[in-house]
Amino acid sequence: MQLLKERILKDGRVFDGDVLYVGSFLNHQIDTDLMDKIGNEIATLFCGQKITKILTIEASGIAIACATARYINVPVLFAKKSKTSNLTSDVLRAEVVSYTHHNISTIFVEREFILPTDKILVVDDFLANGEAIRGLKGLIEEGGAELVGCAIAIEKGFQGGGDELRQSGIDVKSLAIIDSMGEDGIVFRD
Amino acid sequence: MQLLKERILKDGRVFDGDVLYVGSFLNHQIDTDLMDKIGNEIATLFCGQKITKILTIEASGIAIACATARYINVPVLFAKKSKTSNLTSDVLRAEVVSYTHHNISTIFVEREFILPTDKILVVDDFLANGEAIRGLKGLIEEGGAELVGCAIAIEKGFQGGGDELRQSGIDVKSLAIIDSMGEDGIVFRD
Repeated sequence: MQLLKERILKDGRVFDGDVLYVGSFLNHQIDTDLMDKIGNEIATLFCGQKITKILTIEASGIAIACATARYINVPVLFAKKSKTSNLTSDVLRAEVVSYTHHNISTIFVEREFILPTDKILVVDDFLANGEAIRGLKGLIEEGGAELVGCAIAIEKGFQGGGDELRQSGIDVKSLAIIDSMGEDGIVFRD
Repeated sequence: MQLLKERILKDGRVFDGDVLYVGSFLNHQIDTDLMDKIGNEIATLFCGQKITKILTIEASGIAIACATARYINVPVLFAKKSKTSNLTSDVLRAEVVSYTHHNISTIFVEREFILPTDKILVVDDFLANGEAIRGLKGLIEEGGAELVGCAIAIEKGFQGGGDELRQSGIDVKSLAIIDSMGEDGIVFRD
């Protein structure tokens, strides 16, 4: 998606530890118009797939999931990173290794919201090593639903997670894939 | 907002400890069409206020903030509950007592995203004792910006936080105010 790539080049900042900071427009402060266009683009990429639900993970996936859901006209479900008092006891759970937070955590969704009749699109803002997506896939499998595919705003291609998921048969579509970033700038995959 | 009140009566569940569970449509699974109408309603309530930004807190405030931002055509900024590696060192911070999680936490936003020229609308899914709103107000004050008002989907009026904030001079508008809930059902304020 050319508009997103241009915005990354304009406003993205590369921090130590392979961190791409896009908090000025994507996942801390959110450019409402850009997010709307991202949602439209993802809906177009997965057009005709009979999706029944969009699944993401709190917190930064929620905005992009909601933007996409408006164009597909389905509910959003976001996995929670802690089992708060406003979850029931009947939950699906999966483990996720977080690249950003340097830990292993359990994610949860209410069992009643993932059904064997569901065809689910996973949406997230970032894909790096793919662990969050694997966790969300685990929730979908535990609920007996079908994973239609994954839509990602920014994939850090050099970390390999996206290609591993594709090789395992998942339809992963990313709007911007970064092959390298550093002193020479950010290089996108064609 | 009649549509929201009807949905609370239809799908809300009251759990022990004054917990109103609305995870089937508002803050875990999200009804995309309802959320869009909530955003439209909030934008109408604060019409003409020259808002420059919407501020919320992760995670469950993000969907309603984004839905509102589409109608006001401003960016969303969400406060983070932990200082992850994708925040810079120059942040604003405030303390928040969480009713749901039974703890005190610090919330953060990047300093550069709250400016003295900003007129900020705070948006959240729930208001109970008002601690989250007080924290967000603290961030706005620390950044030298103006708090235009607060828009809330569901206010638990019987916990008093909303009325305390109103008495302190803040323009708090809630789409559904619950005066009591329990064995006799849910009673809304007129």
